[in-house]
Amino acid sequence: MMSKGEQTRERILTEATALFNRQGIAATTINDLLKATGATKGNLYFHFSGKEQVGLEVLSRARAAFKTFLENALQGETPGAELEQFFCQVLEKNRSKGFVGGCLFGNTALEASDTAPQFANLVSEVFAEWIDKLQKTIAAAQSFGQVRQDLPADQLAELVVIIIEGGIMQARLNKAEGALTRALGTLRVLLELKP
Amino acid sequence: MMSKGEQTRERILTEATALFNRQGIAATTINDLLKATGATKGNLYFHFSGKEQVGLEVLSRARAAFKTFLENALQGETPGAELEQFFCQVLEKNRSKGFVGGCLFGNTALEASDTAPQFANLVSEVFAEWIDKLQKTIAAAQSFGQVRQDLPADQLAELVVIIIEGGIMQARLNKAEGALTRALGTLRVLLELKP
Repeated sequence: MMSKGEQTRERILTEATALFNRQGIAATTINDLLKATGATKGNLYFHFSGKEQVGLEVLSRARAAFKTFLENALQGETPGAELEQFFCQVLEKNRSKGFVGGCLFGNTALEASDTAPQFANLVSEVFAEWIDKLQKTIAAAQSFGQVRQDLPADQLAELVVIIIEGGIMQARLNKAEGALTRALGTLRVLLELKP
Repeated sequence: MMSKGEQTRERILTEATALFNRQGIAATTINDLLKATGATKGNLYFHFSGKEQVGLEVLSRARAAFKTFLENALQGETPGAELEQFFCQVLEKNRSKGFVGGCLFGNTALEASDTAPQFANLVSEVFAEWIDKLQKTIAAAQSFGQVRQDLPADQLAELVVIIIEGGIMQARLNKAEGALTRALGTLRVLLELKP
């Protein structure tokens, strides 16, 4: 069982995640965090040195959760089926959130790139891990003849990530999944994906 | 010649554009604006009702500037050459900024989608205009046999915008143009673009 202090820490991280997703890290103040959690300033500073540490902890947890998501999503009897399942899971994950919040890593990439290198570096590593994982699946799918072979797997993997992030941006802006669904559909054709 | 008041107004808008690009609208305070411009609170509130009006004015000007950029970039002897020139101009535009700031519309899309509908609506219109313009060029290129014809032009146009926005995100995050350059290169192959 968690101690009362641990519960407070968890509550702060949970609410911080929601706030950071919705309005960004930079625009979220310590007061927003206190208001959302009901914690006192003393509580918060007992557990964290400040907003930066909350931000890094939220991003680190999101990174671990995303790693698990990727492993679970990339499932299938063949590499092509794994990719197909991954595309479906990406859409499903965003649909289940009603396209609110979007992608924490993409949001942080845009807001932190020029202002908060400690966040930007972590997010950059998440994208590199994601591209690396997809590259292996795409290379395997190419060797199975399930994805076009005239372009290198790393280049295609990077493009897949770029399309998903750009697609989530449009879907979130329009509060409708159409842009992401269509982008993934077009991508399947362009990759010549045969699951 | 501009009056002193007009000059102050212009200075506020110029500095606001730079700040909004770099750190986002939500994270920019009225005090940031005063500090960057040297204007007094009285000056600022004489010209604008508040940050929201500054934001809308900055976005409206950026929209007009982007329309001009698009018209100038989509130049060429054939529709395929127009597209090729457009891709080069997109890269050049971002390179000239050293990939700082990224795309004001993409940034605002991610930060405002769930919090500031007045900004999100304007940005949504900019993307719709952009997709519409590209769609016409792509459709013309398809009829010239310069772009693959098995996918509808509107779907391809939407994907091009998504790839550019996702590519700018990665380039900005890595402070290196590689991701955008490679994405546009991959896109040329996937579109079967023959300029």
